[in-house]
Amino acid sequence: MKPAAASRRRAPSVEIVTIGTELLLGQLVDTNSATIARAMADSGVDVYAKHSVGDNAARLEAMLRGVLDRADGAITTGGLGPTVDDLTKEAISAAVDGPLREHGPSVLAIEARMASFGRSGPLSPNNRRQAFLPQDAVVLDNPHGTAPGFVAVRADGKFIAAMPGVPREMAPMLAEKLVPWLVARYGLRDAIFTRTLHTAGIGESDLDARIEPLFRTLENPKIAVLAHDFRVDVKIMAKAADADAAAKLTAPVEAELRERLGPSIFGTDDDTLASVVLARCRERGLTLATAESITGGAVADALVRVPGASRVFRGAIVAYDDEVKRALLDVDEALLRQHGAVSEAVAGAMASGACARLDADVAVATTGIAGPGGATPSKPVGLVYLAVVVSGREPAVRRLTSPGNRDDIRRRAMVAALALLLRELTIEAAH
Amino acid sequence: MKPAAASRRRAPSVEIVTIGTELLLGQLVDTNSATIARAMADSGVDVYAKHSVGDNAARLEAMLRGVLDRADGAITTGGLGPTVDDLTKEAISAAVDGPLREHGPSVLAIEARMASFGRSGPLSPNNRRQAFLPQDAVVLDNPHGTAPGFVAVRADGKFIAAMPGVPREMAPMLAEKLVPWLVARYGLRDAIFTRTLHTAGIGESDLDARIEPLFRTLENPKIAVLAHDFRVDVKIMAKAADADAAAKLTAPVEAELRERLGPSIFGTDDDTLASVVLARCRERGLTLATAESITGGAVADALVRVPGASRVFRGAIVAYDDEVKRALLDVDEALLRQHGAVSEAVAGAMASGACARLDADVAVATTGIAGPGGATPSKPVGLVYLAVVVSGREPAVRRLTSPGNRDDIRRRAMVAALALLLRELTIEAAH
Repeated sequence: MKPAAASRRRAPSVEIVTIGTELLLGQLVDTNSATIARAMADSGVDVYAKHSVGDNAARLEAMLRGVLDRADGAITTGGLGPTVDDLTKEAISAAVDGPLREHGPSVLAIEARMASFGRSGPLSPNNRRQAFLPQDAVVLDNPHGTAPGFVAVRADGKFIAAMPGVPREMAPMLAEKLVPWLVARYGLRDAIFTRTLHTAGIGESDLDARIEPLFRTLENPKIAVLAHDFRVDVKIMAKAADADAAAKLTAPVEAELRERLGPSIFGTDDDTLASVVLARCRERGLTLATAESITGGAVADALVRVPGASRVFRGAIVAYDDEVKRALLDVDEALLRQHGAVSEAVAGAMASGACARLDADVAVATTGIAGPGGATPSKPVGLVYLAVVVSGREPAVRRLTSPGNRDDIRRRAMVAALALLLRELTIEAAH
Repeated sequence: MKPAAASRRRAPSVEIVTIGTELLLGQLVDTNSATIARAMADSGVDVYAKHSVGDNAARLEAMLRGVLDRADGAITTGGLGPTVDDLTKEAISAAVDGPLREHGPSVLAIEARMASFGRSGPLSPNNRRQAFLPQDAVVLDNPHGTAPGFVAVRADGKFIAAMPGVPREMAPMLAEKLVPWLVARYGLRDAIFTRTLHTAGIGESDLDARIEPLFRTLENPKIAVLAHDFRVDVKIMAKAADADAAAKLTAPVEAELRERLGPSIFGTDDDTLASVVLARCRERGLTLATAESITGGAVADALVRVPGASRVFRGAIVAYDDEVKRALLDVDEALLRQHGAVSEAVAGAMASGACARLDADVAVATTGIAGPGGATPSKPVGLVYLAVVVSGREPAVRRLTSPGNRDDIRRRAMVAALALLLRELTIEAAH
């Protein structure tokens, strides 16, 4: 028998509260709450719910009291700034019955930060307000901004944590200050470890059908299917005390998924289509280039995002104008006249031209009609041709017809171009 | 005296509830709630709060009852799918005391949709479940998926709306079905009209200091400052019965802001740096090209995103390798040897080379060190040079040193390249 899980402490529960009127007007997409939710999952803390409220002290206080009725703690972001709109501390102070007091070390830290910007002298009343914290709160230092975060603990042991709303201040405070505090306080052991399998070239419903029996019956690890960015990811989430224990739970499930999904799986975890394409090229000593019309440089940009791309990637020619296709990619004028720029023949010629002009072993080319203008009866908006040339062979061409708007069509063409590159590099390797 | 606003009905209030365990694990950033929040602001509905809950019927029911205690309605997304995890309807049914009944027209609509995919015959029990709706609910058709949405009204007049979680199904249902229902039910008149002024080349704190007195005293319209993507936007939000009335409130505030912020304001509303650069070029009959190293095609991609870019934009050379800078941009080998690829001299030569090779009147060039590798003692990670050539004149060069990671450094270089292009096109026009 396994050691009884019940002998461990129950996992603590929290709810996440993001604060700011701009969140309720829809002018800002809240990314903080997803960052916090992931960190809680990784630490074995249950997240019961997430909330966003405006800069309204009464509603915030009521919300926080409600959260502490249901969960062990509230984790808040936002409303710690120097302006009168920033009411978070008053609401937290009321919800935990801990009056606000000036926190001496925070005054000094704020003064030091102001001085580093060349502003010396006494703090303005607004800046001084940032150093008022609920009595006995645990202070979470903020090396990336002026407002310190804190954790205030109520007499019954329930807590409210407050962090700034600016993601680049919040994220390090969460990872370096708040999570260690939670781990120590609750003696956390079990965490959720996620293994992600990235697929390309398979639709969500087809993928679902192939793995559905597995999906239904599993408890630990669980499986989730997530379609995004014109691809589908499969996540295996294991609850375990450490990474090794999680790997033992995950491995047989991953093997089963690989059996069912085969070569559709192109990478895991932090891999991207671009990073795997670059790795395949590097393994085989091949250099890479792109020739882009409809994608306008987006394929090159995705490749250059990957650190170390320079060892493989030579460059790109974005031939948006047909004259540029002729002058810089040596696409035959007759080909353009006969087939038009959006054609299988021109896509192939562009890829060959990129190999020659950029002195690369492998190239991908994109041409298409992104709309809203430019369509003809035989060439509708959404028509895209992609071509890949590997080591001087005949171009491999793919034709797509994409629904959606200009952004969707261009983005899908970019993802499909990388997927075609990967397929051709894989087929090539099998020779 | 103005007609008393109090004689109008009070604005209805809602809270938004997005449903799905994946939201609480942080594996998906919730964009639906921002879409709904914007639509509510545009329609004059107050949003008191937003919440996300997992696929847990008891917690969802408690949450919905709480929402109806505070607000006139709840707007939910997610959990309407065909699987057993999808518990939204049971929870809503309990919260409004309206039992679930099979809805005949929805059965037919689901059958028709299945048939269009080539699947005929009787519905599976899971698909049939999707046609069960709370008794007397108003059905919101879903032309983009199988699960219909609905609005269930409780005996006291409070309502719960349910829409699918897939954004491309939710967004049209919201705009075409739910908003008209709200407008009719509450006789909505006042809405929030937002006018956005986009700035570049001015920091958030500097901008804040210049407009702060205005910001403090205004009630209608209100002003909000939003830093994002290495730029700052100023939003003017007017509450008014229609666009004309909003424009009358907004115009004097916009004039005052333009007085204080001057040429930092480069555009309004849907304008982007790229769209304004293209418009300036088109007005003056100039063609445009880019020569990119550190940005790797991202500047070209931003330009091509704009519909109609082809009238101005010729193309780009992404010269990631120094050999490509020599071969395709005619950068002098001696220059590369003497100054290195990341230098003012090479940036200027790249811009000139792009004008010549791509036969363009205007070009921007980017070169820099994005990290994590590639730094030298005199050239740290984050060092970027940008150059713009207009109509054969001497290059205008800008040097940046950016903090942050590879993505931040590259993205900031892209935005700064477009801002430098715009500045040089503006100076040029003033000659």
